[in-house]
Amino acid sequence: MNDAKTELGRKILKIKKAKGLRWADIAARITMSPVWTCALCMGQMSAEPHHARGIAEILGLDEEEEATLCEIPYRGAQPMPPTDPLIYRFYELVLVYGTSWKEMIHEEFGDGIMSAIDYDMQLERLPDQKGDRVKITMSGKFLPYKRY
Amino acid sequence: MNDAKTELGRKILKIKKAKGLRWADIAARITMSPVWTCALCMGQMSAEPHHARGIAEILGLDEEEEATLCEIPYRGAQPMPPTDPLIYRFYELVLVYGTSWKEMIHEEFGDGIMSAIDYDMQLERLPDQKGDRVKITMSGKFLPYKRY
Amino acid sequence: MNDAKTELGRKILKIKKAKGLRWADIAARITMSPVWTCALCMGQMSAEPHHARGIAEILGLDEEEEATLCEIPYRGAQPMPPTDPLIYRFYELVLVYGTSWKEMIHEEFGDGIMSAIDYDMQLERLPDQKGDRVKITMSGKFLPYKRY
Amino acid sequence: MNDAKTELGRKILKIKKAKGLRWADIAARITMSPVWTCALCMGQMSAEPHHARGIAEILGLDEEEEATLCEIPYRGAQPMPPTDPLIYRFYELVLVYGTSWKEMIHEEFGDGIMSAIDYDMQLERLPDQKGDRVKITMSGKFLPYKRY
Amino acid sequence: MNDAKTELGRKILKIKKAKGLRWADIAARITMSPVWTCALCMGQMSAEPHHARGIAEILGLDEEEEATLCEIPYRGAQPMPPTDPLIYRFYELVLVYGTSWKEMIHEEFGDGIMSAIDYDMQLERLPDQKGDRVKITMSGKFLPYKRY
Amino acid sequence: MNDAKTELGRKILKIKKAKGLRWADIAARITMSPVWTCALCMGQMSAEPHHARGIAEILGLDEEEEATLCEIPYRGAQPMPPTDPLIYRFYELVLVYGTSWKEMIHEEFGDGIMSAIDYDMQLERLPDQKGDRVKITMSGKFLPYKRY
Amino acid sequence: MNDAKTELGRKILKIKKAKGLRWADIAARITMSPVWTCALCMGQMSAEPHHARGIAEILGLDEEEEATLCEIPYRGAQPMPPTDPLIYRFYELVLVYGTSWKEMIHEEFGDGIMSAIDYDMQLERLPDQKGDRVKITMSGKFLPYKRY
Amino acid sequence: MNDAKTELGRKILKIKKAKGLRWADIAARITMSPVWTCALCMGQMSAEPHHARGIAEILGLDEEEEATLCEIPYRGAQPMPPTDPLIYRFYELVLVYGTSWKEMIHEEFGDGIMSAIDYDMQLERLPDQKGDRVKITMSGKFLPYKRY
Amino acid sequence: MNDAKTELGRKILKIKKAKGLRWADIAARITMSPVWTCALCMGQMSAEPHHARGIAEILGLDEEEEATLCEIPYRGAQPMPPTDPLIYRFYELVLVYGTSWKEMIHEEFGDGIMSAIDYDMQLERLPDQKGDRVKITMSGKFLPYKRY
Amino acid sequence: MNDAKTELGRKILKIKKAKGLRWADIAARITMSPVWTCALCMGQMSAEPHHARGIAEILGLDEEEEATLCEIPYRGAQPMPPTDPLIYRFYELVLVYGTSWKEMIHEEFGDGIMSAIDYDMQLERLPDQKGDRVKITMSGKFLPYKRY
Repeated sequence: MNDAKTELGRKILKIKKAKGLRWADIAARITMSPVWTCALCMGQMSAEPHHARGIAEILGLDEEEEATLCEIPYRGAQPMPPTDPLIYRFYELVLVYGTSWKEMIHEEFGDGIMSAIDYDMQLERLPDQKGDRVKITMSGKFLPYKRY
Repeated sequence: MNDAKTELGRKILKIKKAKGLRWADIAARITMSPVWTCALCMGQMSAEPHHARGIAEILGLDEEEEATLCEIPYRGAQPMPPTDPLIYRFYELVLVYGTSWKEMIHEEFGDGIMSAIDYDMQLERLPDQKGDRVKITMSGKFLPYKRY
Repeated sequence: MNDAKTELGRKILKIKKAKGLRWADIAARITMSPVWTCALCMGQMSAEPHHARGIAEILGLDEEEEATLCEIPYRGAQPMPPTDPLIYRFYELVLVYGTSWKEMIHEEFGDGIMSAIDYDMQLERLPDQKGDRVKITMSGKFLPYKRY
Repeated sequence: MNDAKTELGRKILKIKKAKGLRWADIAARITMSPVWTCALCMGQMSAEPHHARGIAEILGLDEEEEATLCEIPYRGAQPMPPTDPLIYRFYELVLVYGTSWKEMIHEEFGDGIMSAIDYDMQLERLPDQKGDRVKITMSGKFLPYKRY
Repeated sequence: MNDAKTELGRKILKIKKAKGLRWADIAARITMSPVWTCALCMGQMSAEPHHARGIAEILGLDEEEEATLCEIPYRGAQPMPPTDPLIYRFYELVLVYGTSWKEMIHEEFGDGIMSAIDYDMQLERLPDQKGDRVKITMSGKFLPYKRY
Repeated sequence: MNDAKTELGRKILKIKKAKGLRWADIAARITMSPVWTCALCMGQMSAEPHHARGIAEILGLDEEEEATLCEIPYRGAQPMPPTDPLIYRFYELVLVYGTSWKEMIHEEFGDGIMSAIDYDMQLERLPDQKGDRVKITMSGKFLPYKRY
Repeated sequence: MNDAKTELGRKILKIKKAKGLRWADIAARITMSPVWTCALCMGQMSAEPHHARGIAEILGLDEEEEATLCEIPYRGAQPMPPTDPLIYRFYELVLVYGTSWKEMIHEEFGDGIMSAIDYDMQLERLPDQKGDRVKITMSGKFLPYKRY
Repeated sequence: MNDAKTELGRKILKIKKAKGLRWADIAARITMSPVWTCALCMGQMSAEPHHARGIAEILGLDEEEEATLCEIPYRGAQPMPPTDPLIYRFYELVLVYGTSWKEMIHEEFGDGIMSAIDYDMQLERLPDQKGDRVKITMSGKFLPYKRY
Repeated sequence: MNDAKTELGRKILKIKKAKGLRWADIAARITMSPVWTCALCMGQMSAEPHHARGIAEILGLDEEEEATLCEIPYRGAQPMPPTDPLIYRFYELVLVYGTSWKEMIHEEFGDGIMSAIDYDMQLERLPDQKGDRVKITMSGKFLPYKRY
Repeated sequence: MNDAKTELGRKILKIKKAKGLRWADIAARITMSPVWTCALCMGQMSAEPHHARGIAEILGLDEEEEATLCEIPYRGAQPMPPTDPLIYRFYELVLVYGTSWKEMIHEEFGDGIMSAIDYDMQLERLPDQKGDRVKITMSGKFLPYKRY
């Protein structure tokens, strides 16, 4: 169902490289965050018309591609378990830290979950003498389990 | 192989509740972070002797249990895909954001990965009028793929 | 991790049968809905102390069992795909109606999901000449995907 | 086997968007419910000729496409477990509530199942100050297990 | 959840052998068919009290075991794909004849299914010069897919 | 390996519909049973030349298609577990009745299996006031396990 | 269901070792082949009473164990894919030679299969200067696919 | 990676049929065994140039196809578990006889395996009054586990 | 996502064969190791521009193909478990030696892992009278688990 | 089947720790390599009597445990994919380098495999200023695919 969005993602990666743009550049154009902009271009988010407009302009997309950016995707094309080592490391974090997240969030908030929908994320480079680090900051709204 | 560590984890949860302790209290005793301390108690990390000492004292563990804390675990007891909704949401983030993490980290650092070993994490409550949020900050050393 | 809650669930089923109680009776005692009360007793929900109190009284549970009702479960013990025909039919509904739910909810609400956390459900008998029907009414809060 | 119905589904989504129609509009034309009409268009149901006729007229489909609407599908194209978060939440409900549905339906009706064939469903918006809700009402005929 | 029914099944097999009974003997006692009676004893069906009574008498079961026969099972303990050759052959029939059943039933009845709930079955020996045959006769109510 | 037979199956379904034929009509032409004829056309059986001849004539197939009917298939294209509800019900019968078939066949015949190769099947409509039924009659040669 | 047969298998391996017996010795006692005798003792075959008698005598089994040898097993406890390298090699032969077996058997016999029930096997040491070889000879009755 | 070899296999099957050749005929031309020749043509083995030469001549293959026969395949295209009944029976033999092969080979040879690489196989028709049999003779070099 | 790199890999294998080159020849041209060069050409590594330059020259690749060599791959196209016997043997080593690697590395280095990113490998022929051997030497940086 | 060997492995780990021994110490006692000795103790290899003798002496095992060391294991208890990060990295190497191993070994040796049976391995610490490295050296006999 996502063929159009996936194909557009591949095309955007090529244009972005050819134009020497960074995700931050594209994001700045639409005043959104780089992570969300990247996820949108990779076909995992849906844009509002003005976002699609801005991205189409900076990347030189046609009208149909602009509309494709606004479509709501069937999310989750990522194979599981991930075969790519970079992505696998995040899967491994779930394996190793899953129970800790559960215990700590319940301790602090009670029964419920951290939303993956009302959710945002940032990704930064953290300079470090022993080797720079990838820093990821995320926040998701706590949703209490309804008792009814 | 982890039976002893898993069983100890269950016991610690009971003691912690009975004593009204929080992970932060236990962590403070050994001057470590709450997330790592929780992961250690859940059987996913190995302690150095003085950490095990401190935890044994605050929780009232016996010598064998103290030694168990120092053992290196066979990590990853978490069933996959996770059946628990709280843990599943993190798995879903890998499904949705996997390719974005890959594109953004490569853009910034080149070919390589974010280490899940030389890695740390913090978990906080982020007050918010529309509902408090779970904030997670993590950093992992970037490891460039060796070309040889 | 849920052994205690699962085992308690089995015990409650026996007591309930022996006492000739219905879920509605137990639910009425704690002024909650029968579905939630049943899910709680089956080990899939966590009770607040006064709910646990009421259930312990009506069923004659001891203190430890009462505390077990308050514990937050590792949810989702149900094998998938379900082997039991009654439960499988719900799984089949996801197979058959999954894409329709997606298209209809997006049409009405835009990009987002129906929460399975801020969620409630009712189950009724619907008299019908051609054979009575099971009626299920559920509602979940719509959560819009955050654009950031 | 469903290639024609799946492809037609994609085409219908485009026409529907281009014409600014809602599922309710298409359903009204054939005096059927919006959910069934949507499921039909998504390739999961088979139409009677006059339904196919009405839909072909409102959407401008050709004769072969009209015939495709009448074909009986090989149902269940939905990947399992669902990777899309919206659809996954329904799968999660089976994980969490499966045993409760089983206990409650047996309590009320005895041994048997809720039919997923002699089944209907409605989907509505439920206005709510804390955020509107998705309301789903479904009913399926109870089928008692035959003892022979 | 079915431990009691599975365990009882094993015990019944032993008693049956020790007493030199056949399924037909047990079935005759409760005026039911041998297949259903066997499925009941194997823990896959639920008895009405008088069936349980008759079986308890002929096999010498105690009161708790009699009650166990009346319990509604979590059906489907059979591993899939079946590793046992006898059971696997039936699985193979689904692989080979699945699409033919679908085409033929739809041709005759239209869109719908053969119920596996309002269903009965017989198993007989069919004498044959080239080697006796297993004859299975089954019938299930046709359930038309509801259009609503 | 079965592409030709699968594709031919799809084509036959169309021709059959266009010509208003039933499986019984096609089967009568070659004096074979409707189930086997249907399975042959669905690509799961191999024809003898005169069967292929008859089918080619009644359906208007060309020489290559006639030859394709005679080819021995790589059987079993059916996805498992079946996602289509009609086919799934047969899979469910294996889940529920697998152990009963095993116990009953062994009781009657001793150690061995019912052949799925030296096997035949009939499918009929069984008129019934409470709703017509699908009746399936199958027989397979009993094959005793060789002791050597 | 095979617990008794599996447990007996483990015990037989110990007795056999303690007594310094070979499968050929046990087989000779009951005038059967070593492979079948081994498979019987490993819990994968059912004995006739006089076989069980002979094995009980040579191994010193009690009456219940003798009866266990006669029970018909739920076959196929072997995990798949096999994790043990010796057993895996046979699985690999299916991967590599599966299509060749199919083409060659069909060429010689037409449409049908080699029975794995009316089947026997021998295992020998084949002396060879470059290293002795395992020689396996098997034969299974050809079963033609019934056309009906 | 094996597309060329798989496609060539399909073509060879057609040519072989058109020319009325048997595997034994093709094998005789290159003085190799029919099984190996068949496996080579099915894309699971690699030919030496003179084998490829001979096969190309007898079948009328072009130069590129001849070269394809010499390529070393990515072996194992067979789906597992096999859906085709003929191939499945061999898989079933691994399920049923896996542990017996292990016990018997270790008894005779000690710790090690039967090679599936230094391996050969023959397939014959064994005339038998009660129905001809498929006879398979295989031998593989015993490889002792190295202790170092 | 790796289509271009995979396709290029296939093309390189053909050119390499046509030109009679060995991996060592290609590697020597860019002063890199043969294993890394091979992995790069197989689409599992990313080149720096001058590596891509050298490879393009020796193999006669065009500009787009040269750029493809520099792209960072979605790694891990290898099916698991591997169906090819050569690759499977490495998988088997993980099955057999996994726990030994874990115990030995922890004994020597403490808690942590051997990096598969800061990693190199060599593959050589080891002449041996009893048959030459494949020698693989690998080294990966030890990464201690961070305690924080 | 390996329960005794697995349990013994756990016990050996405890004794080894209590006695402050290293694998090299145990290996030296029986003049074998540390890797093989470790694999033996972890239940994945079989000892000759004098090896078992030496290990029993140094670790203080009883006669039955000594015999257990000599038993041939059902190898491969390691869960796959490995959940433990240390072991997973080796699995990842198969994912990333599988095709390169295949291409390079075939280039050097022709069609065949590296034996995982006639195989040895060493594990060393490689001092390195940027962080010490794990060095693994392995060699396996090349086995050419038999053409017959």
